[in-house]
Amino acid sequence: MTESVDRQTAAERLRAADDILILCHKNPDGDTVGSAGALYQALCQLGKTAAVLCSDPIPAMYSYMPFARYDGSFEPAFVVAVDVASIQLFGEKNDVQRYVERADLCIDHHGTNSGYAYATLLDDTAAATCELLTEWMDDLGVRITPDIANCLYTGVATDTGCFRFTNTTARTHLAAARLIAAGADIERLNEILFESRSHPRVEAEKLALESLQLFYQNRCALICLTWDQISGTGVAGAELEDLTSLPRSIEGVQVGLTLRQQPDGSFKISVRTDRTINACAIARRLGGGGHPRAAGCEISGNLENAKHAILEEVKKELDKLDQELSVQEQQ
Amino acid sequence: MTESVDRQTAAERLRAADDILILCHKNPDGDTVGSAGALYQALCQLGKTAAVLCSDPIPAMYSYMPFARYDGSFEPAFVVAVDVASIQLFGEKNDVQRYVERADLCIDHHGTNSGYAYATLLDDTAAATCELLTEWMDDLGVRITPDIANCLYTGVATDTGCFRFTNTTARTHLAAARLIAAGADIERLNEILFESRSHPRVEAEKLALESLQLFYQNRCALICLTWDQISGTGVAGAELEDLTSLPRSIEGVQVGLTLRQQPDGSFKISVRTDRTINACAIARRLGGGGHPRAAGCEISGNLENAKHAILEEVKKELDKLDQELSVQEQQ
Repeated sequence: MTESVDRQTAAERLRAADDILILCHKNPDGDTVGSAGALYQALCQLGKTAAVLCSDPIPAMYSYMPFARYDGSFEPAFVVAVDVASIQLFGEKNDVQRYVERADLCIDHHGTNSGYAYATLLDDTAAATCELLTEWMDDLGVRITPDIANCLYTGVATDTGCFRFTNTTARTHLAAARLIAAGADIERLNEILFESRSHPRVEAEKLALESLQLFYQNRCALICLTWDQISGTGVAGAELEDLTSLPRSIEGVQVGLTLRQQPDGSFKISVRTDRTINACAIARRLGGGGHPRAAGCEISGNLENAKHAILEEVKKELDKLDQELSVQEQQ
Repeated sequence: MTESVDRQTAAERLRAADDILILCHKNPDGDTVGSAGALYQALCQLGKTAAVLCSDPIPAMYSYMPFARYDGSFEPAFVVAVDVASIQLFGEKNDVQRYVERADLCIDHHGTNSGYAYATLLDDTAAATCELLTEWMDDLGVRITPDIANCLYTGVATDTGCFRFTNTTARTHLAAARLIAAGADIERLNEILFESRSHPRVEAEKLALESLQLFYQNRCALICLTWDQISGTGVAGAELEDLTSLPRSIEGVQVGLTLRQQPDGSFKISVRTDRTINACAIARRLGGGGHPRAAGCEISGNLENAKHAILEEVKKELDKLDQELSVQEQQ
């Protein structure tokens, strides 16, 4: 079992260490890369040797974050994982598992953190690990330079969908204000992070819009991409994931469905709902699961069968809501 | 000529007044409506009679902002305009011009404010009039209630594209943090403001993506909507305006062009550029104008002529940039 440590203790451990290896999670996103970049810069400022290791390549869009990749040039004496909730999320490549078992410290904001490290600094009220790190730089005794600010802003902004998602709090905006004051170049960062759609993504968006169907008096919207279309565009998994918010974002739509065919022909279905409908209840009845407003399941069989099955479950939830509302009206 | 007043003076004038008419600009957006709603609530808190008047209907999406529309039930003794930069922007309907001439106070953040009011509280470093008002509530001696916070957040968030546009500063985020702490329901507001696309807009987006063309090694992207398509979808002007950011948002695109046919057959062209290209230089050579990164012009004639004319000017700017870069390399 891990030892839960407070900010001060975590800072003391890192200040006492040297030859530090920083680990990211696989399929690296803005928060894990931003956390690693900021921590790397902070450790350099403290005069330490450090480097970053990730199972997967760091996406080229994050190339503005200056940090050294681990190349074996020092033997790690201290291992710190950032934004990684469980051992499985480290991945298998780049010999990363060799270091995972001896993780001295984990800094994370996921409430689901499994406690795999010797010590864990966890704050699940932070919208991003970078939000926690922004505040923690004071404990560490590090001045937030423009480079550190760029890294931390990246994590805060990407994990909150640029301050739009429901995890955004007053504290998130305070962190952003501090990072901008410290020199984060948000004009450039927002352009890179939020205004740059790849050609495959644009193509996939077009196909998704062409597939759009509305059901139940426009209360349910469905988009669908076949495996031929997905492989034809070459769109990346994370970009497809973004598309799942599209059907729900249409005016009046309470349930948005995204059907993505898998290589084996089955359909992965993402269910997104507004406040009134439980997405998890819909997905669970088809063997899936998730959160109240974002859930998913998988259905084998052809497209028409998959559509039929999920739409039946959506109808049940819509009917249930209507019934509840009509009972309330009668009372 | 208007009298420039500081925050304290503006607050004193309003505190001394009663029977106050609040004026918005025509085609009301989140900032003018949010400013009016917040000011209405603030004046009520100070025990005053107030109401809001706008030339155009307030969009239904803003119905969560509680304020009284002016219905003639009191004779205005003090007129205050919010977020209105010039007399033309008030519009002509609802008898609004009758009150414009006697505007006692204007509160605004547009550097272009023409100074039409007797007194003007102007801060063009604020990203939104609502950002300025958030701070100004202290001068006015008003507590920011959840209702006021919802109104002010609306203006701050919409004028900055949810903290994504280049006008966003540390101060903008500080205002947002304060409004959330004061009870702004940002989960609900962000859903209404940023995750609700009308059916006509979705249709227009689909047509725009289908029209997408790339030029000059994908450095220029062009979308085009004919008048038949625009009138066929029934998409609103403001929603079409949003679409102009689409072509520039594609990876590697330095110049994004949006051609919208007008009822008379001519084409309105929006030019959006990255940091390296001057949009205004392109538009100006075709009789238009604008800002360095967002400009526009109008071309009569058929679609092929319009495309040809604007693409020629884009090419000149791209060639100029390449030449400058090659000179720099040789030096």
